[in-house]
Amino acid sequence: MPRHALATVCLSGLLEDKLAAAAAAGFDGVEIFEPDMLASPERPAEIAARCADLGLAIELFQPVRDLEALPPDDFADALRRLDRKFAVMEQLGVTTALVCSSVHPHAVDDDDLAAEQLHVAASRAADRGLRLAYEALAWGRHVDTWDRSWRIVEAADHPALGVCLDSFHILSRGSDPAPIRDVPGEKIFFVQLADAPELAMDVLPWSRHHRLFPGQGAFDLAGFTGAVAAAGYAGPWSLEVFNDVVRQADPWRAARDARRSLLALEETVGVAGTLPPRPPVHGPAFVELAVDPDTADEIGTVLHALGLDATGRHRTKPVTLWEAGEARVVVSEEPVPTTSIAGLAVRTDDPEALARRAEALLAPRRDLPHAADEADLRAVGAPDGSLLLCCPQRPEPGRADFWPGDFVPTGVPRRPGHVAGIDHVALTPPWDDVGETSLFHRACLGLEPVGEWEVAAPFGLVRSRLLAAGTGADALRIVLSSSVVRRGGWAPGVPAPQSLALAVDDVLAVARAATAAGVRLVDVGPNHYDDLVARGWVDEETAAELRAHRVLVDRDEHGEYRHVVTEVLGGRVFVEAVQRVGGYAGHGAADAPARMAAHRRARVAGPAA
Amino acid sequence: MPRHALATVCLSGLLEDKLAAAAAAGFDGVEIFEPDMLASPERPAEIAARCADLGLAIELFQPVRDLEALPPDDFADALRRLDRKFAVMEQLGVTTALVCSSVHPHAVDDDDLAAEQLHVAASRAADRGLRLAYEALAWGRHVDTWDRSWRIVEAADHPALGVCLDSFHILSRGSDPAPIRDVPGEKIFFVQLADAPELAMDVLPWSRHHRLFPGQGAFDLAGFTGAVAAAGYAGPWSLEVFNDVVRQADPWRAARDARRSLLALEETVGVAGTLPPRPPVHGPAFVELAVDPDTADEIGTVLHALGLDATGRHRTKPVTLWEAGEARVVVSEEPVPTTSIAGLAVRTDDPEALARRAEALLAPRRDLPHAADEADLRAVGAPDGSLLLCCPQRPEPGRADFWPGDFVPTGVPRRPGHVAGIDHVALTPPWDDVGETSLFHRACLGLEPVGEWEVAAPFGLVRSRLLAAGTGADALRIVLSSSVVRRGGWAPGVPAPQSLALAVDDVLAVARAATAAGVRLVDVGPNHYDDLVARGWVDEETAAELRAHRVLVDRDEHGEYRHVVTEVLGGRVFVEAVQRVGGYAGHGAADAPARMAAHRRARVAGPAA
Repeated sequence: MPRHALATVCLSGLLEDKLAAAAAAGFDGVEIFEPDMLASPERPAEIAARCADLGLAIELFQPVRDLEALPPDDFADALRRLDRKFAVMEQLGVTTALVCSSVHPHAVDDDDLAAEQLHVAASRAADRGLRLAYEALAWGRHVDTWDRSWRIVEAADHPALGVCLDSFHILSRGSDPAPIRDVPGEKIFFVQLADAPELAMDVLPWSRHHRLFPGQGAFDLAGFTGAVAAAGYAGPWSLEVFNDVVRQADPWRAARDARRSLLALEETVGVAGTLPPRPPVHGPAFVELAVDPDTADEIGTVLHALGLDATGRHRTKPVTLWEAGEARVVVSEEPVPTTSIAGLAVRTDDPEALARRAEALLAPRRDLPHAADEADLRAVGAPDGSLLLCCPQRPEPGRADFWPGDFVPTGVPRRPGHVAGIDHVALTPPWDDVGETSLFHRACLGLEPVGEWEVAAPFGLVRSRLLAAGTGADALRIVLSSSVVRRGGWAPGVPAPQSLALAVDDVLAVARAATAAGVRLVDVGPNHYDDLVARGWVDEETAAELRAHRVLVDRDEHGEYRHVVTEVLGGRVFVEAVQRVGGYAGHGAADAPARMAAHRRARVAGPAA
Repeated sequence: MPRHALATVCLSGLLEDKLAAAAAAGFDGVEIFEPDMLASPERPAEIAARCADLGLAIELFQPVRDLEALPPDDFADALRRLDRKFAVMEQLGVTTALVCSSVHPHAVDDDDLAAEQLHVAASRAADRGLRLAYEALAWGRHVDTWDRSWRIVEAADHPALGVCLDSFHILSRGSDPAPIRDVPGEKIFFVQLADAPELAMDVLPWSRHHRLFPGQGAFDLAGFTGAVAAAGYAGPWSLEVFNDVVRQADPWRAARDARRSLLALEETVGVAGTLPPRPPVHGPAFVELAVDPDTADEIGTVLHALGLDATGRHRTKPVTLWEAGEARVVVSEEPVPTTSIAGLAVRTDDPEALARRAEALLAPRRDLPHAADEADLRAVGAPDGSLLLCCPQRPEPGRADFWPGDFVPTGVPRRPGHVAGIDHVALTPPWDDVGETSLFHRACLGLEPVGEWEVAAPFGLVRSRLLAAGTGADALRIVLSSSVVRRGGWAPGVPAPQSLALAVDDVLAVARAATAAGVRLVDVGPNHYDDLVARGWVDEETAAELRAHRVLVDRDEHGEYRHVVTEVLGGRVFVEAVQRVGGYAGHGAADAPARMAAHRRARVAGPAA
């Protein structure tokens, strides 16, 4: 099992905050980023003692810059500075220093000189029992690829000199990590892991602002880490993530997010780790809405009009079970500031095993209060604050987790209708938390990313991603959707509305019934439908029918998505009825701007001056 | 005087919000961005009526995409879509449509075909009294430079076809705008203006997310606009700025910011505009602190310890004048949540003219309450919420704005000392507002940008910029400093502390006196000073002396910046004593992380878990 380390530069806070947060998240060690130490009033030896108290090894001191391939005077200066750093390292009790490939304006393009000077520096390190890990920065003045850094280390041929391999520097340049497996493992002194989104920008700002924890970006971290493991590397897996958002986030939370990414990566790579295996997960069991008692009637009216029936009442609590097809919605009345999607219950072959896995992924176990004769469901808190409930695939009377047994049948007959099940839930955590929430749901439930969308909505850009697994009644889809920038007091809808989307087989019929029952569906106005005709998607007559029923239409290359949307209920949730035609894979993101504008208009009379 | 227009896509809100905001800021017209119309429930004719009511001309309908250089079938489709847009334009009452150069996958690299098809499209437009403005997108599939779009328009040779010139598309590619002056003015159908920061990224995301209003970025908008004016272009100057932050900001405020940028640009280009000329502005007259009565004693102790004397008390209000050298600080006691820099008073040859200019730059005039026999100072509200006071260069008894007359001399003698004047004030508006605040101060006061810094501070990245004018006692410096991302509840210091920096000629002497007087100066700890030695900036002995006096040191290629910093007083302001050595031009940004960490430690005991 590899040791897990975290660079202090990743986190927000004072050095003591960062160290405490890393320890609390279960890291075995840290990289000390020198500026964090410089801003600390504690002497290096005191910092070392603090780490020891927290059970953290100091795995690396970083960075040493502009050391090699220098003219004699500059090299002499560099060695003088290096000696000072060695003294600090001794006080810290750390043996390995990271040496970044030179960006010095006087650095020359001469690998022999680089090797010779690194040999000299490594000899001085060895004299003090220290060692140097040489890393090719992707923007190094001359040395900017890992294989060149390795050739120089080979040529320098000193036991106190090895390479540091950083996944960002290697993968951002499109270098092939596979040949790393041929490097002798003991010459890989250190491995730093960072993922990143594909961004069309220079590698330096990309690296300094946009790195992500493994599994949250587009890089093949598994391929990289697999190659490193195959080389026989036995040192720590260490995260070095420069990210503007993480840098200002709660460090305790960010450290958990970081460590979760390593746990998931170990599993992907097939390295022995601590994560219990995932039991088979099927579709949703039910969605739980937390609804203020004042709003419960309105929610009930809407659910009924869309085709669901109130089939059960909880034996002891003001909780109602609504059902239609395979769709189950549990409406829990409690005094809450706004209605919200409080929980997602999934069906699994082994609820306890799934809950244990979630816990190992650093989600807190939640004990749900229940009477002795009520169902005892396994539950954890997801990073976005919602509850993830682990339900049996087939609830059986007599089992402790037989949750339907908590409901007394109302005797209301289930109407035949058009609702097949739950299409998806759309959650709206702050954008800062989407990467973490997404990684948790992927790692825990086995969801895969289907796509990511960015739309120019009336109050700023909105980005969304769809995670999904399974098909048909087993389809489990979670949308995470958030404003990219939302800081001002002007923009409405904080927190942004969530959506409960029902899968239906005839959206026109559902819309007709809902309207007949007096439910107001969102009307985005005539221009939207004129545009459908202008695009050539539908003819005038169909457009008129769609508009009459307030059906919104999106398309992709596989098919069509037709949906109707209710007003926002109880301040934060709307319900959709969704008909997928063909292999449409998205979640109607293109319709979000018109829908948001209509929701806004429903709330205000005239411009919100 | 050119007409001022704004594209609706710039602003946040529903279409009706955007239009109202544009009108309120004094724009003459708008570009209607089609998706804004599609999300509106109003028919195009109703939108036209709304614009007319607001006094806004609809100058452009946009965008038409993928029209030219297409195979016959695709072109037929494009013409069919175009006819639909023409119908919408007729209802809107707009005559010009923006045609973006094709990004269609079937578009061919054939300028003759492009010209031929644009001729056909222009003929159809002309039949309906409409016209087409062809624009080269910087990422057009084949046509991606303005000169190529102009050659195609020339070849197409149709009176209803001209070019649209967008400064972003032209300047982002490094194209020379000078030859634009040779294009016949009447063939330039439209001009769109946008600035942008220099960013090392692909032009498409750069354009879609990071455009800025003129004067807020790095592009030579004056050169571009001058060339357009020289060509004889007589249409509107229209802003088309895609910016993630502006897109979610209060549209009324953003529209003012937008229009201010055009007013300033007109003056720079030398085009007749509405801005009254700037009277000579000299250094600061005084800085006003708003201080809670509970904190007034502490502030007074600190100012006195740093060398200022309480020379005057206001005749009627709890306001004290502190002085040393040319530094004047007015401490106004009032019940406020935190102490803050409430106002900056500048000396000018013509206070009323400066105030009129500020008003023309859309800063609200502020009437300061005063008794009949008290000074009547001209004042406006700056965009960051602080007050800008316009004081006479030499206050003379008898003048209505003789502000020193409001203070009764205390008789306290002024001590000889080391304070020369005000070095700078550092304001900390939210980062979203820095561009606007900066443009206002530059345009109003004639400040120039000296530099911009980004530092990795303990609670996230902090970016700062220094604006300055004048030298010696006439030096006027404003620092705007903010967290780039600060959304979470974890990060402290919202609002971030402001700084009042006094210029001194011997920081060690000032530090010694302050410490002797019992004022706690910030101590960043020993590691910072070890590093100064490691860098070779100072020897061990000097480092020890600096540390003993808690002097922080920064350097640039011109000189050195030595400063001491007090604790944060009254929750939001700290005072610095600053000694500039040589031609150091910055504001000590590099020391900010250590200073912020020390400030944080002074507030909390141990880690903030």
